Amino acid sequence: MLIIAERINASRKQIAQAITAGDRAFIQGEAKAQTQAGAHYIDVNAGTFVGEEADKLKWIVEAVQEVTELPLSIDSPDAEVIKAVMPLLKKTPLINSITLEPSRIEGILPLVVEHKTKVIALCQSGHGSAETTERKVALAGQLVEKLTGAGVPLDDIYIDPLVFPLSTNPQSANATLNAIGEIMKKFPGAHTICGLTNVSYGLPARKLVNRAFLAAAITNGLDSAIIDPTDKFLYAMMKVVTLIVGKDDFCMDYIRAFRDGRVE
Amino acid sequence: MLIIAERINASRKQIAQAITAGDRAFIQGEAKAQTQAGAHYIDVNAGTFVGEEADKLKWIVEAVQEVTELPLSIDSPDAEVIKAVMPLLKKTPLINSITLEPSRIEGILPLVVEHKTKVIALCQSGHGSAETTERKVALAGQLVEKLTGAGVPLDDIYIDPLVFPLSTNPQSANATLNAIGEIMKKFPGAHTICGLTNVSYGLPARKLVNRAFLAAAITNGLDSAIIDPTDKFLYAMMKVVTLIVGKDDFCMDYIRAFRDGRVE
Repeated sequence: MLIIAERINASRKQIAQAITAGDRAFIQGEAKAQTQAGAHYIDVNAGTFVGEEADKLKWIVEAVQEVTELPLSIDSPDAEVIKAVMPLLKKTPLINSITLEPSRIEGILPLVVEHKTKVIALCQSGHGSAETTERKVALAGQLVEKLTGAGVPLDDIYIDPLVFPLSTNPQSANATLNAIGEIMKKFPGAHTICGLTNVSYGLPARKLVNRAFLAAAITNGLDSAIIDPTDKFLYAMMKVVTLIVGKDDFCMDYIRAFRDGRVE
Repeated sequence: MLIIAERINASRKQIAQAITAGDRAFIQGEAKAQTQAGAHYIDVNAGTFVGEEADKLKWIVEAVQEVTELPLSIDSPDAEVIKAVMPLLKKTPLINSITLEPSRIEGILPLVVEHKTKVIALCQSGHGSAETTERKVALAGQLVEKLTGAGVPLDDIYIDPLVFPLSTNPQSANATLNAIGEIMKKFPGAHTICGLTNVSYGLPARKLVNRAFLAAAITNGLDSAIIDPTDKFLYAMMKVVTLIVGKDDFCMDYIRAFRDGRVE
């Protein structure tokens, strides 16, 4: 299970404040906590700083790289911002994200190819996001075709079928779960990834909903996730479902997480 | 999701003590708590009282029926015990359980047919329990054939593919999950059911493992479970996964459970 740590995102108020104030220590604390919690990539996002996104993201990247050895997930829809950040990176990043929208394909795909990065590919085209299983799988096919056609290996592709709030459509999570299952069967070697927070929007006990959705998604084959790894209940659920679906030989990873105090 | 409440089982020390002491109030307290928690059937088991099982079970049945309107799940492998209890029952029970062992088929199947009960059918033959997905599905097929051949409607059949401890075989839960998926596809109209406690035997944080296994099983199509409904975390997981897989129209059942304080 590949874990991309989501906390350093300017859409969170505390992060935006730290960026504005130039509070390097706060950002570094977030990076350290997520590293210790078991992340594999640290996502960095300065998307709310319109016009200053590149400068702010460069500042974040430098701060984060001082305190963690982990590679970064460069979270921007803007090819120019990604391009500006690339020279600073100590390790090959993951690019978060590409879609089928022509501007994003044209701008970002060349960067993925040139720097041989992993990439998150959203099931979203110029005509909008995919809501049904059928449409999600169809867009996933187009993404795989575009990306592999440009030379990106399947193993570097992380398809996000997207999930929408259950409160507006009670079939939305199920559509995503089925899409995950079909994509993993149809494109062996490629990966699936998903954010969790959308699914629970407008419902009570949101964290519980997110946790259960992650469990169901892993059951259907999800092999990476954008999460807050410092959420111990969520982290524990991820570890234990990975064990249940038979992907933890001798239960060693689960037992280690338990011993390290990551499972509660 | 059909919930069979498991607490009144003589293998639990407190229940055995209450049976021995004739502590009617204790047994009735367990029945009431499980009824209030959202059970659909109250399982009753006196299996550890060898030689006295029928008498003890009759006593339990009378005590429980005084305090709940719910039907009972008569939990015994012994046809004579089930036969002795039948005349006392106010509602059509569920019989827990039949297997492919000839003595159990010959003794219990006629009771299921005569009284038109629902029945739990374990994937177990005279040659032992099914460990692999293939074997579980094969035994499920034999059970369905035997039962429907005798006139039991598919809707009354609850197939339990059984689950064994992950600590002795890290693929055991996955074999069960895959069997649930295949059985639900292969025998539409029949149900699947599972106990949870076996899966976590020998592991740390057992309740967490049980909870995650239930989530994964519901994701694969499980539509009934033998659980302790007073375990609020387990109950909440069941409700929220049911929502996630698209089986809770307008999220009403989840929201109601939340309002009633059953989800935490």
